[in-house]
Amino acid sequence: MQYPNNIKKEFTKLSVSHSNRGMNLESALNSSNEYYLRKDIALIYKKPTPIGIVDVSYKNHKKTIEKAYFKEQSTLDYNGLYNGKYIEFDAKETLNKTSFPLSNVHEHQTIQIRNVIKHGGIVFLIIRMNNINYLLTGEDYIHYIDTEKRKSISYDYIKEKAYIIKEAYQPQLDYLKIVDKIYFKGE
Amino acid sequence: MQYPNNIKKEFTKLSVSHSNRGMNLESALNSSNEYYLRKDIALIYKKPTPIGIVDVSYKNHKKTIEKAYFKEQSTLDYNGLYNGKYIEFDAKETLNKTSFPLSNVHEHQTIQIRNVIKHGGIVFLIIRMNNINYLLTGEDYIHYIDTEKRKSISYDYIKEKAYIIKEAYQPQLDYLKIVDKIYFKGE
Repeated sequence: MQYPNNIKKEFTKLSVSHSNRGMNLESALNSSNEYYLRKDIALIYKKPTPIGIVDVSYKNHKKTIEKAYFKEQSTLDYNGLYNGKYIEFDAKETLNKTSFPLSNVHEHQTIQIRNVIKHGGIVFLIIRMNNINYLLTGEDYIHYIDTEKRKSISYDYIKEKAYIIKEAYQPQLDYLKIVDKIYFKGE
Repeated sequence: MQYPNNIKKEFTKLSVSHSNRGMNLESALNSSNEYYLRKDIALIYKKPTPIGIVDVSYKNHKKTIEKAYFKEQSTLDYNGLYNGKYIEFDAKETLNKTSFPLSNVHEHQTIQIRNVIKHGGIVFLIIRMNNINYLLTGEDYIHYIDTEKRKSISYDYIKEKAYIIKEAYQPQLDYLKIVDKIYFKGE
């Protein structure tokens, strides 16, 4: 099949632009976590999405789910162990260019962030915004929502407080480098 | 409907014996974890069982799973944060009275136990056997499988090394009391 020249170009452009943007945030984090595991750096996993099972069937001793629905996670999506410390975080993407809408963070997730801080764990959000990946600490997140009482976090606050996680080949998002910088400074 | 006397008695006996045995281990642990959360003692959750989705449908903007199957967890089932420390464990029940069959612990779970120890976390198994709940540390578990090379852990080893978690009203299984004793002795 032959395409007119202008369509061919469009295809090429799209494909290049897509590869520049890289995978979506979740895939990038999953592949980074697999890298950390393989290299014996950290044990960090994405929790499976909880489901409510409506109906199951049994066939040849195998249980199959015939109907179910997605439920909300009570915690953040990722947690694990790094350098003897408990780590928990969530990944959020927004197409909004000027502010991060707080509707992206559910109320129980904000409670969980407060709880992890209180119990001595490391907790943060990884926010992809304007094609940049930011790590915003739980402490800076809580400080903002407690003092600003707004429905979104301004991009200025994110640029001021959050740390940029640069994309690379392996691991694709080396967020533990930022964790080292923030939480293990003296070590 | 009237039952002959002997059947009635049998029913009563069964029902009493069931209530004495208490809930199954998973329910007891979930209710204990809810207690720890409510009382602000620890943040420990059972991970959702991972599933492989085969088919979904959309109706009124709601996504429903139409077919899926259960997958194996890569980690132990429970993890969280207690007293600034990472905790991970799994719950195992056996009806075997003289030994704990190692087929209850999947190979990737044993790898995970080794990994958590290596990265400085707290890891253990809670084993219900002969109606008693035992906490066996990851270290004692690994020591046994590395030195004994057997297909089960003898009940004698469990009685010697593991700690008994007594059942109570609230929390039903206060396993963190044992964790305090083992891992926070000096504090």
